[in-house]
Amino acid sequence: MVDIIEKKRDGEMLSKEEITFFINGYTEGSIPDYQASALLMAIYFQGMTPEEQGHLTMAMVESGDQIDLSAIEGLKVDKHSTGGVGDTTTLILAPLVAACGVPVAKMSGRGLGHTGGTLDKLEAIEGFHIELTEEQFVKQVNDFKVAVIGQSGNLTPADKNLYSLRDVTATVSSIPLIASSIMSKKIAAGADAIVLDVKTGEGAFMKTLEDAEALAHSMVAIGRQVGRNTMAVISDMSQPLGYAIGNALEVKEAIDTLKGQGPEDLTELCLVLGSKMIVAGEKAETVEEARAMLEAVIKDGSALNLFGKLIEAQGGDARIVHDPSLLPSAKFQIEVPALSSGTISKMVADEIGVAAMLLGAGRATKDDQIDLAVGIVLKKKIGDQVNAGEPLAIIHANREDVTKSIELIQKHIHISNQVQEKPALIHEMITG
Amino acid sequence: MVDIIEKKRDGEMLSKEEITFFINGYTEGSIPDYQASALLMAIYFQGMTPEEQGHLTMAMVESGDQIDLSAIEGLKVDKHSTGGVGDTTTLILAPLVAACGVPVAKMSGRGLGHTGGTLDKLEAIEGFHIELTEEQFVKQVNDFKVAVIGQSGNLTPADKNLYSLRDVTATVSSIPLIASSIMSKKIAAGADAIVLDVKTGEGAFMKTLEDAEALAHSMVAIGRQVGRNTMAVISDMSQPLGYAIGNALEVKEAIDTLKGQGPEDLTELCLVLGSKMIVAGEKAETVEEARAMLEAVIKDGSALNLFGKLIEAQGGDARIVHDPSLLPSAKFQIEVPALSSGTISKMVADEIGVAAMLLGAGRATKDDQIDLAVGIVLKKKIGDQVNAGEPLAIIHANREDVTKSIELIQKHIHISNQVQEKPALIHEMITG
Repeated sequence: MVDIIEKKRDGEMLSKEEITFFINGYTEGSIPDYQASALLMAIYFQGMTPEEQGHLTMAMVESGDQIDLSAIEGLKVDKHSTGGVGDTTTLILAPLVAACGVPVAKMSGRGLGHTGGTLDKLEAIEGFHIELTEEQFVKQVNDFKVAVIGQSGNLTPADKNLYSLRDVTATVSSIPLIASSIMSKKIAAGADAIVLDVKTGEGAFMKTLEDAEALAHSMVAIGRQVGRNTMAVISDMSQPLGYAIGNALEVKEAIDTLKGQGPEDLTELCLVLGSKMIVAGEKAETVEEARAMLEAVIKDGSALNLFGKLIEAQGGDARIVHDPSLLPSAKFQIEVPALSSGTISKMVADEIGVAAMLLGAGRATKDDQIDLAVGIVLKKKIGDQVNAGEPLAIIHANREDVTKSIELIQKHIHISNQVQEKPALIHEMITG
Repeated sequence: MVDIIEKKRDGEMLSKEEITFFINGYTEGSIPDYQASALLMAIYFQGMTPEEQGHLTMAMVESGDQIDLSAIEGLKVDKHSTGGVGDTTTLILAPLVAACGVPVAKMSGRGLGHTGGTLDKLEAIEGFHIELTEEQFVKQVNDFKVAVIGQSGNLTPADKNLYSLRDVTATVSSIPLIASSIMSKKIAAGADAIVLDVKTGEGAFMKTLEDAEALAHSMVAIGRQVGRNTMAVISDMSQPLGYAIGNALEVKEAIDTLKGQGPEDLTELCLVLGSKMIVAGEKAETVEEARAMLEAVIKDGSALNLFGKLIEAQGGDARIVHDPSLLPSAKFQIEVPALSSGTISKMVADEIGVAAMLLGAGRATKDDQIDLAVGIVLKKKIGDQVNAGEPLAIIHANREDVTKSIELIQKHIHISNQVQEKPALIHEMITG
């Protein structure tokens, strides 16, 4: 192991055998944390070639269980977003893409953050359960083309262990390590092809376009290395996506979008990512053709209909797709007035996410309880005009005193006298 | 601690408080190995300023006991050599410098390597004991100006722990860490001033002059930071120093040198280092004056005489200074013949050291027993002429089969047809 650390420290490339030796030894416990952390820091400084990242990814995949989706007909296309504020894309894309004939066998997570993860959002639907046996999961996807469940089995234990170590050794922000971590989870979950939505901007983990590009290129290169068709879209997170931030509120926004009445940016991003997924799933030859298919299943109601079937199949109250008022709702709706007049020039998405978390919409630690009903619905986005006193957002809360959240929103939605253009939603597309 | 690692990772300077927090926490066990190793690797890449190295040195000094030499009159000057093959300087310098009036209160080590450390060499003298109480130690230096003992007390535990960790995380060869480690040990052992002998070349830890210079500059800068007058000499280790490699053999060579009959290079290096020590100890104003004092105490026999007193005071058989045949001697003396004629063009000192270690002159692991009698006496050095069949060296062994050592010596003493100059002994002097 010392030789491996030394080799990486000196900027040499590690072989497949060396990387596998490290991952297996670390997972078994024969390589101690202190050697692993020294290697991680050496990787932080020296980076990894695409070959090395491919080997690392596959070694982590092979460190644990792998989901076998071979009984599902067709190419299994997974999507991954790197996280942001108000990101409801999975809820929309799962039925939308499935309605076009691409099987969606989705494993989702809960996660820490401003709001819950996809699983939490789905649990805002009464009765919805996220636990299916592997058999039920496969059968449901074969029957309806779509299922969304929680992670089962012991997937990528090496990645879990390494992530915990990175967290306490200042080696989280290494792009080759982030890229291998994400890719290993997707591959272990059975993906044949992967569409990545890498966010950039204030509300994203990758604050700069440069970092987002580097991460996207890394992941696409890993995909090529390990034989999984992978492509990436770099999308904007300089402001929250859509208007809703909060679990039930985002389910409602997903339903609106599946009806063709969703926010412009959220709809557009879903069409862009969905087209890529359909092409990757070989149900269309071009993204133009795929986009027309997506627009058609929105227009004729079959995407919304499939969302209803998904909910029903997993025990949920499918009536919500036609009557979202059946979703949990908060006791109080409180306006957040603009303090001056002008144009919205900037939104610090992160801080607006914190305002939602303070209401109870997200978890700060694993054991926190989420209040699925609460959250924020924005009334304005960058480039919009606003008059003093007009609402910037509506807070949905289960308590009356929301002063701290109001202050955060007022502080982090900047109002300027100058004209401000709306930011571009899609910064770049990267194909393997 | 994560913030400290991150700061260093990003190339920022750590404060005294942060460095002390790390060293204290690591020594107490509240900071785990995996965070320490991540920080060490970050230091490997980002380096440390002289201020940071000074703080690290003093934090390590304060992590354990410190020897109080204040009861000894005069400035206490310590010397440190960074290690090489056949380095007998301490045995010579201790009585030599003491004979000029500079108190030498020396704590030495055993160490792993080709031959034993200074303590092992002294133990080749029958009866010599290296354990004195602090009181006896101080009294002996006040009485005779010189004592050489083993390390007592719990000096620089932080350095010991960190060194063990560096050894298994490929962070040994970081110059700021090496420099702080050496300086912390000298300061904890009570040095007021420090003369450093940094070796460079095939037989040294610092293989290149550039690295040796960097280490010397680092240590001199630490000395300035922490208020200890420190200077460094960069000396040649492209070939073994002197002719003898082995414990009793080196004691004999030290006696020869104290008589004025030692090898030219060993004598010269002792005069250079000794002059610096005398100036540092404020017993002479210039190195020229100091050198004349050293030459005088060799010539009049008082240096050799003081070596005898030192031996006697510590229970050893002082007759050896006049009759070195009383030292342990090996059963067999075996010639190593030159395989061709020409000029000695290169000696791979490291490998010749290994040849001595194979005879039993040194320890590979802590628990190995040393055979104090065995070793190698070189007959030729770089630049010397040799005829095929003439001895390159004499092996002193306690067994007849020394094939492996013969082969190593023949292989690593290169004989060329071209003229080869003797290498310069002193490459550079660095003063604070």
